[in-house]
Amino acid sequence: MFRISSKKQQRSVYMDHASGTPTSTSVQAAMMPYLSIDFYNPGGLYTKSVSIKNDIEKARGDCAKILGANTNEIIFVDGATEGNNMAIIGSVKSWQKKNPQKTAHIITSVIEHAAVLETCKYLSETGCKVSYLAVDESGYINPKELRDTIDPNTVCVSIGYVNGEVGTVQDIKALVKSVRHFRKKQGSLYPLMHTDAVQAVNYVDLIDVKKLGIDMMTINASKIYGPKKIGILYLKNGTNIEPIIHGGGQEKGLRSGTENVPAIIAMQSALQETRSMAGTEQDRLEILKNYFQKILEQNFNEIVINNIATNSIPNIINVSFPRISHEEIILRLDAKGIMASVKSACKAGEEGDSHVILALRKNSELPTGSLRFSLGRTSTRNDVDYVVKHLKKIIENMNTTYSQYVDK
Amino acid sequence: MFRISSKKQQRSVYMDHASGTPTSTSVQAAMMPYLSIDFYNPGGLYTKSVSIKNDIEKARGDCAKILGANTNEIIFVDGATEGNNMAIIGSVKSWQKKNPQKTAHIITSVIEHAAVLETCKYLSETGCKVSYLAVDESGYINPKELRDTIDPNTVCVSIGYVNGEVGTVQDIKALVKSVRHFRKKQGSLYPLMHTDAVQAVNYVDLIDVKKLGIDMMTINASKIYGPKKIGILYLKNGTNIEPIIHGGGQEKGLRSGTENVPAIIAMQSALQETRSMAGTEQDRLEILKNYFQKILEQNFNEIVINNIATNSIPNIINVSFPRISHEEIILRLDAKGIMASVKSACKAGEEGDSHVILALRKNSELPTGSLRFSLGRTSTRNDVDYVVKHLKKIIENMNTTYSQYVDK
Repeated sequence: MFRISSKKQQRSVYMDHASGTPTSTSVQAAMMPYLSIDFYNPGGLYTKSVSIKNDIEKARGDCAKILGANTNEIIFVDGATEGNNMAIIGSVKSWQKKNPQKTAHIITSVIEHAAVLETCKYLSETGCKVSYLAVDESGYINPKELRDTIDPNTVCVSIGYVNGEVGTVQDIKALVKSVRHFRKKQGSLYPLMHTDAVQAVNYVDLIDVKKLGIDMMTINASKIYGPKKIGILYLKNGTNIEPIIHGGGQEKGLRSGTENVPAIIAMQSALQETRSMAGTEQDRLEILKNYFQKILEQNFNEIVINNIATNSIPNIINVSFPRISHEEIILRLDAKGIMASVKSACKAGEEGDSHVILALRKNSELPTGSLRFSLGRTSTRNDVDYVVKHLKKIIENMNTTYSQYVDK
Repeated sequence: MFRISSKKQQRSVYMDHASGTPTSTSVQAAMMPYLSIDFYNPGGLYTKSVSIKNDIEKARGDCAKILGANTNEIIFVDGATEGNNMAIIGSVKSWQKKNPQKTAHIITSVIEHAAVLETCKYLSETGCKVSYLAVDESGYINPKELRDTIDPNTVCVSIGYVNGEVGTVQDIKALVKSVRHFRKKQGSLYPLMHTDAVQAVNYVDLIDVKKLGIDMMTINASKIYGPKKIGILYLKNGTNIEPIIHGGGQEKGLRSGTENVPAIIAMQSALQETRSMAGTEQDRLEILKNYFQKILEQNFNEIVINNIATNSIPNIINVSFPRISHEEIILRLDAKGIMASVKSACKAGEEGDSHVILALRKNSELPTGSLRFSLGRTSTRNDVDYVVKHLKKIIENMNTTYSQYVDK
């Protein structure tokens, strides 16, 4: 008798951790009881509800400790998009109540995530002034330029801690210095400094909100091996924001609606787990990233590396090739089981090159299409070799096709 | 040798299903793979992301079918509070764009959930006019009164399908008739009719949005044995609302932020499960409710039954006793393992009697404190007997204490 071997299953290499991570086994274990056994509404008066409420407050305290915040400065929100909306719209609305005759001014940068840029666009359509700071070719914002852009009506400065596409880590402390310089000079509480730190939490050393000196910070769980649609808005005591969702008054009246208990427990668990691994993962991925980059440069003459900031996170490699379609590279990689992206996932379906890469290219003729590989806990050297091997074939093939087309 | 018996574990009787239900085993089984195996961001370009996106769209289609809607009319939202905010604020903002000089008018009722009332309060603080319809002693809104309250600037009528405290099922079709009568007369698309149907889905026969004739309807999963913080906003094609959260443009631009894939799958599963049980559970609980009510009336001379509407859902018993503190009854019941509530959970911690009961008492001298027992899938006749037995002791004891106090 013959043994018929089953068709070899294709290898699967996930290199899109910046757009989403699986919920880790321990995070799942932490959250599961709250779906079925401890499902009670934390708003009830009976012991089991009170106990759930206590579990939420314990999770809040633990998260606060990790972020260097006070417990009452942690607001659980439904993800980073909501947190960013609350920080920006909320602070503007609060300011407008006190300054009904004035035009609120918001400062952000050209390379922010859609959750910040679209929120600013919405506010500009409703009469606010928005300034968009430029970045240099590494993706850095100039603190001096920020200082020069602030005016007496500047309510909020919102700058991402780590850019999700090219991994540039902003010098938040220097930006805060510009903001504080103005506040001190004017004797004002404004502008408030907000940072979207979603892509920072896994790897950046400094996530202590007091040491950073910021007023508001957004993080979420789905990028740190927790579930989707849960996040934290750190809101420094004394910082006033208006809610954008109204109802039962949960989360100090800032986010009404029954608390998402399993997700809150998961948020705490994921945050704790990722911070406990931050140092070792940082070192491991730094080595892997350097290896990846080295063999990419060895294999591709015309490749442009976009993650060139002196200070950048260790899991993002972003590259450009001249002439060819990067969307097509993604699809051809996909056929080999390799998952990567052209830009942030929520913009992937839209036409055109990444707004981040376009911003970096302001003074250059380099190609503007881009390919992002983002590493994670399970990424290995074998994965990198596999990717480069197939990428080489794909690019060669596409270049040949391109040449034939051009030569015709 | 003696066998030492362990202390008998106290019985636990959950009678607060209207404030939250456990996630059912099959719903959990449906959502779990999407936490860890199929965790991919549905916005990606690769096959696994596209497959997740397809799963979302399948869930959307299934939900649409159950609700009698078109697939593209189902917007996944982060719970009922958010859905209600989106319906009311969103429709007002859209109308205001077209009518910048006019004062938007919203109609709701005095017995709505905080998610509706607080949203209306917020809008009234920002210059909108809000009319609050009264209810009769059963909790019914008069369609004639609605008709008389609509004016040419009425943008949105928001009336809950089933009241969460006393279980009154509104005649939504009659209310819609009032709205449509005005629209036809004026040749206008407004007012839009919205209903919060959170408490209706488990038991009410008619949840078909087309047959109801409404423009917007909110439901959520946490009341139908699904997880917390996921819901649906049904938005009839042609109904314009502005988003309140801005970002990546998910859910037709109406709710940005990475889709909560496990929760969306769970929403579909929970909706399907509860509708498949609706008929039999309705019959079973109707009998149990009648039994509960009968022995309550047999045991308590002075009890007032508040769930007296001709058409009310079969799982809510709401009662009042004269003189004594209903919060204290809750705490004493809790000591016996019985979980019930005084009012909706998100308001339980606040001072004062339920706004719903106060509204029913407009023309009467009956007591305004209240106790809500809400039955669910696991509720039995034994549970009811256990509750009444302990409630009897508690009320007798409290009445004795009260008499001694008054006699002094």
